[in-house]
Amino acid sequence: MSRLEVLALEGLPEIHLGDDLAALLRDAAPPDGFGAGDVLVLAQKIVSKAEGAIVALDDVRPTARAKFLAHEHGKDPRVMQVVLDESAEIVRAVGGVIVCRTRHGFVCANAGVDASNAGGEGRVVTLPRDPDASARAIRAALPGAPAVVITDSFGRAWRQGQVDVAIGVAGLRALDDWRGRTDAEGRELHATVIAIADEVAAAADLVRGKDSGIPAVLIRGLGRYVAADDGPGVAALVRPVADDLFR
Amino acid sequence: MSRLEVLALEGLPEIHLGDDLAALLRDAAPPDGFGAGDVLVLAQKIVSKAEGAIVALDDVRPTARAKFLAHEHGKDPRVMQVVLDESAEIVRAVGGVIVCRTRHGFVCANAGVDASNAGGEGRVVTLPRDPDASARAIRAALPGAPAVVITDSFGRAWRQGQVDVAIGVAGLRALDDWRGRTDAEGRELHATVIAIADEVAAAADLVRGKDSGIPAVLIRGLGRYVAADDGPGVAALVRPVADDLFR
Repeated sequence: MSRLEVLALEGLPEIHLGDDLAALLRDAAPPDGFGAGDVLVLAQKIVSKAEGAIVALDDVRPTARAKFLAHEHGKDPRVMQVVLDESAEIVRAVGGVIVCRTRHGFVCANAGVDASNAGGEGRVVTLPRDPDASARAIRAALPGAPAVVITDSFGRAWRQGQVDVAIGVAGLRALDDWRGRTDAEGRELHATVIAIADEVAAAADLVRGKDSGIPAVLIRGLGRYVAADDGPGVAALVRPVADDLFR
Repeated sequence: MSRLEVLALEGLPEIHLGDDLAALLRDAAPPDGFGAGDVLVLAQKIVSKAEGAIVALDDVRPTARAKFLAHEHGKDPRVMQVVLDESAEIVRAVGGVIVCRTRHGFVCANAGVDASNAGGEGRVVTLPRDPDASARAIRAALPGAPAVVITDSFGRAWRQGQVDVAIGVAGLRALDDWRGRTDAEGRELHATVIAIADEVAAAADLVRGKDSGIPAVLIRGLGRYVAADDGPGVAALVRPVADDLFR
């Protein structure tokens, strides 16, 4: 019977700037260690904190645009400035909701800038500068070379609630492309490309609550999607701006 | 250690109109049966087929609007007519991509109308008329009363690839609402509502390929989200049109 196991890795300490995250993950590994077909899923926040992707708001000088948007949408002008700094484009700004396209190409609220669990008042956490590079570095430092997926919680245009999605990938086939293959009746499947890395992110989120302090999750049973080489990363999951029907 | 198990239920036969799907699911249950904390995840197509949510294209008379859209987008006018019949609104129609709001309120390509695995040429499968009612009926007929989630594969506005999402729910808390609760630092979480039912759908999709003939998946370890009463169903996951920033 085909099966997956989704395991919360417990015992990780609070992460701070400069922590060796891979070493801490090695210590939190299950008794049999990480295996080559395993997928290790990490919440963005611990990666950002270890890398120092944190902004002290006292150091931020908001521009006139940040002040205007902050006033319009009931935000702190300094936080708004960080959001603008992280954004390539503001996709929508309506009634306090600021939907951004980040420098990486992700479309999400507030460009991923977040004040919760930031490690103190007056600080916000941003997304890692290059989440694929972060994933590759962690993978390279782990025995067994599990695939590594870094995730964040994104809203969706037409559905309530957030789901976790992949923002950095190393060693996992992010998309499973069935185009040109046939269905069970032998009929060609025209448009079936499955976002495996996003489904992995969602599955991992189910074993932890937002306050549980469990930012690392191990998934076993997905070996068919794991490769020895790190692969192209998360880029495959980002729809090009030219194909965006909803700008 | 907190953990989930995601199990593909094997041995379901091909489903046809009038089949007693709940009886077939009982036969496919694992040796220890379904339990009260289990979540049973069913691909939309088997529910639609059992209910007869299938349209024979020879019976369809396309309207002028269907003919126009079909010509513009390279579709069969009869299939286009079924898509229009299933839609409350066409959200976008660009270059062969028809994004619809269905009668149920779901925003997806082609209103969920699908020709693959339809059980023969000249037929298309539509979404169940009332997927929450379908989920409730199946749950009521299963010993152990597992929660039931019916899923389909939807594209996303800004990300490549499809993910499975919930279109019908019975007995699962579809949204986990953390607003007003606090993060690990005691700071209030302002906007964290997790779409549990969609994450369940995504997790289930990981154990099956599109051609594997495994439309039923059992998830164990989510008992905290399962309730004895069926609850409000999928409605909680559908963003009201008035809140849609991307019409």
